[in-house]
Amino acid sequence: MNSAASPQQLRQLIRNRKWTTPTSGAASGYLQANLVMLPAEEAFNFLLFCVRNPKPCPILDVLEPGQVEPLIAPGADLRKDLPRYKVFEQGEFKTDAEDVSDYFNENMVSFLLGCSFSFENAMLAAGLPIRNLEEGKNVSMYITNKPCTPAGPFSAPLVVTMRPMAPDQAVRAVQVTTRFHLTHGAPVHLGNPEQIGIRNLAAPDFGDAVTIRSGEIPVFWACGVTSQLAATSAPLSRVITHAPGHMFVSDLKDEDLTIL
Amino acid sequence: MNSAASPQQLRQLIRNRKWTTPTSGAASGYLQANLVMLPAEEAFNFLLFCVRNPKPCPILDVLEPGQVEPLIAPGADLRKDLPRYKVFEQGEFKTDAEDVSDYFNENMVSFLLGCSFSFENAMLAAGLPIRNLEEGKNVSMYITNKPCTPAGPFSAPLVVTMRPMAPDQAVRAVQVTTRFHLTHGAPVHLGNPEQIGIRNLAAPDFGDAVTIRSGEIPVFWACGVTSQLAATSAPLSRVITHAPGHMFVSDLKDEDLTIL
Repeated sequence: MNSAASPQQLRQLIRNRKWTTPTSGAASGYLQANLVMLPAEEAFNFLLFCVRNPKPCPILDVLEPGQVEPLIAPGADLRKDLPRYKVFEQGEFKTDAEDVSDYFNENMVSFLLGCSFSFENAMLAAGLPIRNLEEGKNVSMYITNKPCTPAGPFSAPLVVTMRPMAPDQAVRAVQVTTRFHLTHGAPVHLGNPEQIGIRNLAAPDFGDAVTIRSGEIPVFWACGVTSQLAATSAPLSRVITHAPGHMFVSDLKDEDLTIL
Repeated sequence: MNSAASPQQLRQLIRNRKWTTPTSGAASGYLQANLVMLPAEEAFNFLLFCVRNPKPCPILDVLEPGQVEPLIAPGADLRKDLPRYKVFEQGEFKTDAEDVSDYFNENMVSFLLGCSFSFENAMLAAGLPIRNLEEGKNVSMYITNKPCTPAGPFSAPLVVTMRPMAPDQAVRAVQVTTRFHLTHGAPVHLGNPEQIGIRNLAAPDFGDAVTIRSGEIPVFWACGVTSQLAATSAPLSRVITHAPGHMFVSDLKDEDLTIL
């Protein structure tokens, strides 16, 4: 299996449990997505949360209750075609799973939200550094002190990813990522982390810490983990999400949803 | 009342019935919006329709059931602050109204969707012609043969606006309007109208016909009227929309939502 596999081939491997690891770098050039499944009774409010917070929660696809085949990946089954899932009940983590057929039911609605893997390809193509890839780590993620706009029972602080780079590279990174408005788009902050409530860059809330070199500044992008905090902020009977890094791989290309 | 009035002043005049005419050119530079109000039971499906068809139905704001004060215009009341409304029942037109307090109820959800007035200002600033404004007419609107992606009970053909211009102006118009992705963005078609099912440019389905000069081509943008056709495509107990041209004027500036 190499990064040039098609999304269809990759999803088939995943469904047959021959691929159970993170999807970073797999089916290169194809749009990957965050997954949230929750009861239809709260689907309007959760969709509203996403609409009101488009930077962290850019909507790629939403399915009718009970449906598992997304418009952006005909033939796929969202219950089986991600390598790893997390199941929450009453807002509390319950279990990991490699297939959620036994947890999904006809009353649940599935949301697919944009993921920053898409703009990372474009950043690499522009010669920009992605330190966590250089160091073989997960991207650093932090919970900020910036509240998202709530909707119904859902609320969450904005979660951000951080990539360190030189100031001139940060300017170029703004240009490169602006086009990708459905995969988090331009940065939400750069420079002083304390301005957005981050006290210690060496202690991320999710993922790994990375090296920040002399003369570099941290650059922060909205992060899809925000949607998981929001979905589990209310005591819903059940919420299913992808496990971090184990994304849904769609048939759309990264470039299909750019604005320019 | 001149075009430099603030949105707050304009909405106050409208609420007091001292402004009952179309809002084109009023509170210049502020984002105007299409309004759709419908029963909460179908709000998820209608929101889904908008999410799946972002070019004709770009979402600016969605309110919780019974709420009438939008996030994008604090202090406003959507039941009173538009100059003219249309009320539909069971998918059929029922009445015009200048205030829908007697028609709106606690079970209804309000949607505000982007309007092309925003990019018209930018087009004029770029020196591009807007023929219908030159001729003192409404913009020409046509029902195309391109179906929108349906959602639940909602379906509609794509409706487009048309502005004629020289080919080099059409290139510039693509550049200028691309930035305004939440107010219909770049054109959906240019040139031969028959390719999108329009047989006679002189007979628009809504609005007025305009002069097309020698050497000009028609340029087509997705139109918010699509959302009205969708909302009335199902036999809902009640749907309220703005009357054509009588838009909601928000506190956001046209530039606030551009991508670049």
